[in-house]
Amino acid sequence: MKSTNTICAIATPAGHGAISVIRVSGTDAIIVGDKIFSSINKGKKLKTQKSGTLHFGMIVDDNEIVDEVIISVYKSPNSYTGEDAIEISCHGSVYIQQRVLQLLLKNDIKLALPGEFTQRAFLNGKMDLSQAEAVADLIASSSAASHKIAINQIRGGFSEELNLLRDKLIEFISLIELELDFSEEDVEFADRNRLQELLSNIKLKIKKLIFSFKLGNVIKNGVPVAIIGEPNVGKSTLLNALFNEEKAIVSEIAGTTRDAIEDVLNIEGVLFRFIDTAGLRKTTDIIESLGIEKTAQKIKQADLILLMVEATNNWQHISNQIKYTIDDYNIDDQQLIVLINKIDKNPIEASSIEGLQASFPKISFIQASAKNKTNIEELTSILKKTYDIHSIGENDIIVSNLRHYEALQQAFEALGRVEEGIKNEITGDFLAMDIRQVLHYIGEITGQISTDDILGNIFKNFCIGK
Amino acid sequence: MKSTNTICAIATPAGHGAISVIRVSGTDAIIVGDKIFSSINKGKKLKTQKSGTLHFGMIVDDNEIVDEVIISVYKSPNSYTGEDAIEISCHGSVYIQQRVLQLLLKNDIKLALPGEFTQRAFLNGKMDLSQAEAVADLIASSSAASHKIAINQIRGGFSEELNLLRDKLIEFISLIELELDFSEEDVEFADRNRLQELLSNIKLKIKKLIFSFKLGNVIKNGVPVAIIGEPNVGKSTLLNALFNEEKAIVSEIAGTTRDAIEDVLNIEGVLFRFIDTAGLRKTTDIIESLGIEKTAQKIKQADLILLMVEATNNWQHISNQIKYTIDDYNIDDQQLIVLINKIDKNPIEASSIEGLQASFPKISFIQASAKNKTNIEELTSILKKTYDIHSIGENDIIVSNLRHYEALQQAFEALGRVEEGIKNEITGDFLAMDIRQVLHYIGEITGQISTDDILGNIFKNFCIGK
Repeated sequence: MKSTNTICAIATPAGHGAISVIRVSGTDAIIVGDKIFSSINKGKKLKTQKSGTLHFGMIVDDNEIVDEVIISVYKSPNSYTGEDAIEISCHGSVYIQQRVLQLLLKNDIKLALPGEFTQRAFLNGKMDLSQAEAVADLIASSSAASHKIAINQIRGGFSEELNLLRDKLIEFISLIELELDFSEEDVEFADRNRLQELLSNIKLKIKKLIFSFKLGNVIKNGVPVAIIGEPNVGKSTLLNALFNEEKAIVSEIAGTTRDAIEDVLNIEGVLFRFIDTAGLRKTTDIIESLGIEKTAQKIKQADLILLMVEATNNWQHISNQIKYTIDDYNIDDQQLIVLINKIDKNPIEASSIEGLQASFPKISFIQASAKNKTNIEELTSILKKTYDIHSIGENDIIVSNLRHYEALQQAFEALGRVEEGIKNEITGDFLAMDIRQVLHYIGEITGQISTDDILGNIFKNFCIGK
Repeated sequence: MKSTNTICAIATPAGHGAISVIRVSGTDAIIVGDKIFSSINKGKKLKTQKSGTLHFGMIVDDNEIVDEVIISVYKSPNSYTGEDAIEISCHGSVYIQQRVLQLLLKNDIKLALPGEFTQRAFLNGKMDLSQAEAVADLIASSSAASHKIAINQIRGGFSEELNLLRDKLIEFISLIELELDFSEEDVEFADRNRLQELLSNIKLKIKKLIFSFKLGNVIKNGVPVAIIGEPNVGKSTLLNALFNEEKAIVSEIAGTTRDAIEDVLNIEGVLFRFIDTAGLRKTTDIIESLGIEKTAQKIKQADLILLMVEATNNWQHISNQIKYTIDDYNIDDQQLIVLINKIDKNPIEASSIEGLQASFPKISFIQASAKNKTNIEELTSILKKTYDIHSIGENDIIVSNLRHYEALQQAFEALGRVEEGIKNEITGDFLAMDIRQVLHYIGEITGQISTDDILGNIFKNFCIGK
């Protein structure tokens, strides 16, 4: 599995800065390092240095000094990739970065493919596949929540959980196979009741992981919140109020800008993507089918739906709007938050709210004035509560990767077949086949089972230099 | 002079990448490092580690893992700044970079000002001021030539040269001062002839440095080449031909794009900035004074002037164009290159060229067809020869910094006053005063003489993290 080719890449962000780091990994990394590096201590060779040490000197190309640099030396297996490796910390001029890179290429080192360092770390057993994927997630993380999930995954909690399940399944399979060896004697080593119990237990755990994807996915990509409301109900005033109040938090999300289509708001580490939807059934009952269809699509993608209505003490009117919305878009009312806006103009009587709440017990009602910024914090507090990352413990496992989610679902289905098999008293060899299927899907996540296709798909999305 | 405050900054280019490096320098650097870092070898403390070593572990904020990192430990005086320092190599997510930075700030570490690390290196005697300035030049360098000058300067050649001059001047001054001590005895310790010789020698060296600025300045900022020619003479065709031919070289200049106003071409490591000028005296002799004035300004800024004329065997016609150009713009004919274009339409007879060359012996003539890309390489070869960076040796000193140039000029003028003083047989104390002036200006370059104003001006143009 080990690669003998030596690769290099600029590992720091593209562009101009104080320093840049160029990574080199592979059997020739230190050898070529010695060819192009001249230590300030004349005659000092990187080859004879200890792993994990830093060395000051010059990169020299054909007697010309390219830069004064610091080189980090890592010796196999004590490096990120598990191979011999050096990191050249040079001045952050684009020209110098290119010169150093060209010099390495001249010395028969290849330019690394995206994710190739991490792929090697995986192939050399430094991490499993789900940890490797977490590296990319970690680099892409732009909120406290997505960062937390990625860090947990990189630390190996998920892998550990999967390995525990795997061990149990292997124990299970070995009992059945023992049975097969003695099949003529009709011995049942594997107590079917115990098997059933073990299966239920594993299914429960996998189910929990599958469920966690709902949270993991929105945390990774941001929680889509669809806003429905008539044009003059105050949607943009609300968005402005939200963004003003949380300005300090918003500026923290580097990389995410409030683009034209979606407003992204970071509320205590969770990104919320506010999607303005156009169509809403007018109280006049004229439905523009095209508008409805577009809105329906957006609502389908949303995780939370914020219905904005204008304050009025004719609560029956509001109630109708809610009913229409639920019916038109087939909304689960647990997803719905109703914001009654413009209470500065029409204060709402307590009885109106009581009436509404009684009709729709699962819906959260907020009375607010976006214009005066009254009660806006009630909305943010509901959002916070719904996606509370503080409740995620260090050891909680949240699946956030679609590939893992799909593999877990397939494992779950295969477990169902095993359970069915036990119920139908099928023979041990068939049972074993189904269990091997479960193992296969779990192995795909950690990379015990992997094909070039799977690996290619995973690492192509990495940045170069990682 | 030593600062006791500890500073931090992201040292790698802004944005998203595989890894980022955060620098921390100052008395608390390693102490705070130990507060926020948890090694994989439990209980390992950075404080007890050797300088120049790397340590793998986690950055932990309030029991929450921020990232898996590698920390470089540098102990005073063996660091860039000369202070205790650490470099945190973390995953290149903007979110993580910000988290680590915030954690450092929370631990009373200050955000570094632009160039503050290098300023400390200067204040702690790790480098002199001209070397510190070369660090910024090196990072800004975008061509082989500007890189070479900066690297030479960073290596200390310039400083050494100045220190030699300084030592000689100090020797000179001490002889004169000895004389002053014995002034009543009318002894002349400082042989006036020897002094005069020493002065001439120093003046010659400073003159050479001053002259080198002409080359150093254009190399640093690119050689401005003004193109003059009538609208239909083929200027843009020529530029396209130049850029096509040198495409591979052009793409090497990261950071410099062919903007709307100037086309920048990298010819063997030197940047040439082609400035298209509008006005040229028509052969009809009607001069548009406004056009002439604008062109005159651009020509004044240019280092080379490329006059493009249309091929014709009426060489007197071309000769007139050249004469008008030289007269109108007051051009030194050594700066002028005349490119006779469209030889595909009107091939030029040898006798015509001979006639022109005889009239203008200092001008380089090129017969070309921009359209057919004929003889374009003759132009590039003349440009190459005029600014030949290959002729710059490793130890040649090229002044490229305006501040140094001005200080050298002032030193030169002060030297003139000393010389004048010897001639006029002024007394030793007045001579000493003038020599102290020379020392002052030289000291300004290396930073032996420096004010907060000078330092402030120099370091404010650095990037943060350097």
